[in-house]
Amino acid sequence: MNVKRVDLNSDVGEGFGAYKLGLDEQVLPLISSANVACGFHGGDPSLMRRTVALARQHGVAVGAHPGFPDLMGLGRRRLEASPGEVEDYVTYQIGALHAFTKEEGLRLQHVKLHGALYNMASEDINLWEAVARAVARFDPSLVLFTLAGSRQKEMENISARLGLKIAVEFFADRAYNPDGSLVSRRLPGAVIHDHESAAERVVRMVTENKVICRDGKELEVKAQTICVHDDNPAAVSLTQRIRQALQSVGVQIAPVSSFL
Amino acid sequence: MNVKRVDLNSDVGEGFGAYKLGLDEQVLPLISSANVACGFHGGDPSLMRRTVALARQHGVAVGAHPGFPDLMGLGRRRLEASPGEVEDYVTYQIGALHAFTKEEGLRLQHVKLHGALYNMASEDINLWEAVARAVARFDPSLVLFTLAGSRQKEMENISARLGLKIAVEFFADRAYNPDGSLVSRRLPGAVIHDHESAAERVVRMVTENKVICRDGKELEVKAQTICVHDDNPAAVSLTQRIRQALQSVGVQIAPVSSFL
Amino acid sequence: MNVKRVDLNSDVGEGFGAYKLGLDEQVLPLISSANVACGFHGGDPSLMRRTVALARQHGVAVGAHPGFPDLMGLGRRRLEASPGEVEDYVTYQIGALHAFTKEEGLRLQHVKLHGALYNMASEDINLWEAVARAVARFDPSLVLFTLAGSRQKEMENISARLGLKIAVEFFADRAYNPDGSLVSRRLPGAVIHDHESAAERVVRMVTENKVICRDGKELEVKAQTICVHDDNPAAVSLTQRIRQALQSVGVQIAPVSSFL
Amino acid sequence: MNVKRVDLNSDVGEGFGAYKLGLDEQVLPLISSANVACGFHGGDPSLMRRTVALARQHGVAVGAHPGFPDLMGLGRRRLEASPGEVEDYVTYQIGALHAFTKEEGLRLQHVKLHGALYNMASEDINLWEAVARAVARFDPSLVLFTLAGSRQKEMENISARLGLKIAVEFFADRAYNPDGSLVSRRLPGAVIHDHESAAERVVRMVTENKVICRDGKELEVKAQTICVHDDNPAAVSLTQRIRQALQSVGVQIAPVSSFL
Repeated sequence: MNVKRVDLNSDVGEGFGAYKLGLDEQVLPLISSANVACGFHGGDPSLMRRTVALARQHGVAVGAHPGFPDLMGLGRRRLEASPGEVEDYVTYQIGALHAFTKEEGLRLQHVKLHGALYNMASEDINLWEAVARAVARFDPSLVLFTLAGSRQKEMENISARLGLKIAVEFFADRAYNPDGSLVSRRLPGAVIHDHESAAERVVRMVTENKVICRDGKELEVKAQTICVHDDNPAAVSLTQRIRQALQSVGVQIAPVSSFL
Repeated sequence: MNVKRVDLNSDVGEGFGAYKLGLDEQVLPLISSANVACGFHGGDPSLMRRTVALARQHGVAVGAHPGFPDLMGLGRRRLEASPGEVEDYVTYQIGALHAFTKEEGLRLQHVKLHGALYNMASEDINLWEAVARAVARFDPSLVLFTLAGSRQKEMENISARLGLKIAVEFFADRAYNPDGSLVSRRLPGAVIHDHESAAERVVRMVTENKVICRDGKELEVKAQTICVHDDNPAAVSLTQRIRQALQSVGVQIAPVSSFL
Repeated sequence: MNVKRVDLNSDVGEGFGAYKLGLDEQVLPLISSANVACGFHGGDPSLMRRTVALARQHGVAVGAHPGFPDLMGLGRRRLEASPGEVEDYVTYQIGALHAFTKEEGLRLQHVKLHGALYNMASEDINLWEAVARAVARFDPSLVLFTLAGSRQKEMENISARLGLKIAVEFFADRAYNPDGSLVSRRLPGAVIHDHESAAERVVRMVTENKVICRDGKELEVKAQTICVHDDNPAAVSLTQRIRQALQSVGVQIAPVSSFL
Repeated sequence: MNVKRVDLNSDVGEGFGAYKLGLDEQVLPLISSANVACGFHGGDPSLMRRTVALARQHGVAVGAHPGFPDLMGLGRRRLEASPGEVEDYVTYQIGALHAFTKEEGLRLQHVKLHGALYNMASEDINLWEAVARAVARFDPSLVLFTLAGSRQKEMENISARLGLKIAVEFFADRAYNPDGSLVSRRLPGAVIHDHESAAERVVRMVTENKVICRDGKELEVKAQTICVHDDNPAAVSLTQRIRQALQSVGVQIAPVSSFL
């Protein structure tokens, strides 16, 4: 019998110096993959080491979470960086985090872009290719997380050519457009606040690869990793609910590299 | 017959964004090891990639040149960072540069601290041990450059315990105290401006392990790598002069890892 | 009859971008002077505007709180900046905050140095003079907060020469040395955790200008402003307690410029 | 008889720490208004003070040159900042520079946006209005430099309402579109490299308010200030040529505030 498996990932280590952000200690026991900020949009060297050590304690796989060099905007603002600059920013940040995973006895599992860089690379295939090239050149065994949507086929072609594995990411609390992209946060209904609905959607996506999208129709989504948050207590309890719902139908939560 | 070999190293890649610093293109053909700035006191991701590529073209070995997070002061100002913070800063910066050497097909050869961090670690053995631990944990085959002086024996003990190789660095254009430390730049005669004198000192140090120090007495210095500069055309021509002087007495200039 | 007056000041606006720090909304109704971070050790332009507006709502006087350009260390680490650099950093930060007070219809009342810069300037009279010169040249009607201690007489001479007013600051929760300086945080008993003791000390200092210092003897301290904190709920409740204790003996809490 | 007057402005003070940028010492004797970088895209507190002092020596009027907080990109990359953020960035930077002009005995004359912020505010009237509001609230006697083009009428309406003076800027070495906007640098012929042509265009614009634009037709341009550069020796000699050409036809070069 084929056991269904899925990865739960969350952004962690996004504080800076004396500044704290997110409930990392609470979310790490609940997830299987941690996206660790690398010092550009958030994160600093000491926090990176502590976060990697904390992930190891909880048996959570670690990935790099590179963003734009915009600490003031937490990497959430679009910046007109060229593909070459983006490639270099990603290489730099992966390398910095890799040093901590190496020293702390872990291997780096994946790369997930942060904020505006993630969004821009999802829309501009040249930027995405620059990112994929940085990842593949550093270590082609790394898994690159990608947003579903209209560019997915192109991304698959590029990653196949580069010998790089990609994992499609599903957002538990976000509404989807018919093309598989996320409904913009500016539109009503973009964020799903009800925990039961969100948990049900996740279960259905994992077990049947189906999501009801914005227009009420069914969309096929084959995602290997589910994004959860640790911004506030409600986000943590949603994560617990999703975890329970998945386990109650026999889905195993595991780092993406263990089953991809 | 035993051929004498010595390494010539210079700090490179210390610009930032649109800002240029140093005559990297002119000094790289003359040296055997390049200390590449890693983005804290200078350097940015794109410059790091270009500098690594340029070093590779000239067959120059590459090392990380970590400094304090003080771009405004070019890492030349003492910062009251703890040993733990310093360990994390060094790990971060080594990792970031390592990603570029890996992607550009080179291996990282060494680590040389920059500016105030170098000076502070030379005086405070706890800071130096934190640095050595960061280097050894990341990759014990890396060579850590050290300032000669009163702490040298302790440094050798620590590095032996950590399984780390150290290379003693000699400054071509600086006067020495009897304990092997550098005469402070605030004192007259601290910097040797005459190219012939500087070149002669280098040759004598390499061939006889002797330096005339400040009080006129001879000091034994066994250094494996010689620091040269590329701040201005005079520094580049001094480097050329040193190179010629060494070659004229049959000393081979080679990356420190090739003979240490 | 002469009503006793004293100023209560707290550091506020020390977050950055998405990062929050301190319970500013809770402490602002309790104090008479706010030290607003200016973007170097903490604070960003939008937070500065919001903090100034919030101070105005609560009728709290606003001062600049300049620190070292060390966001990663929250300005708490000593940095080997020259007097000239410090003068320029203070000018820059006062100017930046002044723009927000001007636009929001307030006048700038005072300047209080932050963290390591405050400590270093209290020990090195050349640094302190550089700060005083920056303040006096920008606006000699600004009040410069100073730490009591062995340098106080020199500071008074310099400020008299520059035509600048200084206010001595008292720390409610810190033990004092016989020379009027603070007991180092590294020593036991440096911080007074009991709220009643702290409040009593404040009342005695304000009404009698006396503090029991570390060796049990009485020390004369004439301070015009008392430093309170908003780091955590306990700090806020200590501030409330101090406020009550002062009011119960008829001391009026008012911005330092109203009575200096 | 009515003497024609025009302002020559150049960006200066764009270095950072040990990094130099531009030939400020050479261009300052040739211009009448200096746009001084304020620490976000370039410039640091000490350089700001030195640059203001140098401008004063040459009798050059000083303006603030605020940019995006993107030192790595020298403020040339678009950043998705909100109008509120932009308003706060501009207030902060004007205030910081104002402190230096005040301390050095000058008054602040004008504000000219830098790089991507200038371009974005020229296209998005909400951003421009945020900038104009920051300037007017700080000091309505400041002159705000603006790019000519399709938004000019709206800008005039907003500045009239805010009681703010604007000066239209002309670019000596750039080709114009028929709507008064600059030809994109990506198109051939966007930059005029011939010094004689550039000087002639400037003279004609000043004396007849006419420019031959990209399609060969005449465009009316009434600009009060002409942008020159100091990036390289050729830019400085173009500035000298423009200066001579203007003087040879009796045009007086003077700070914009003296005749606006």
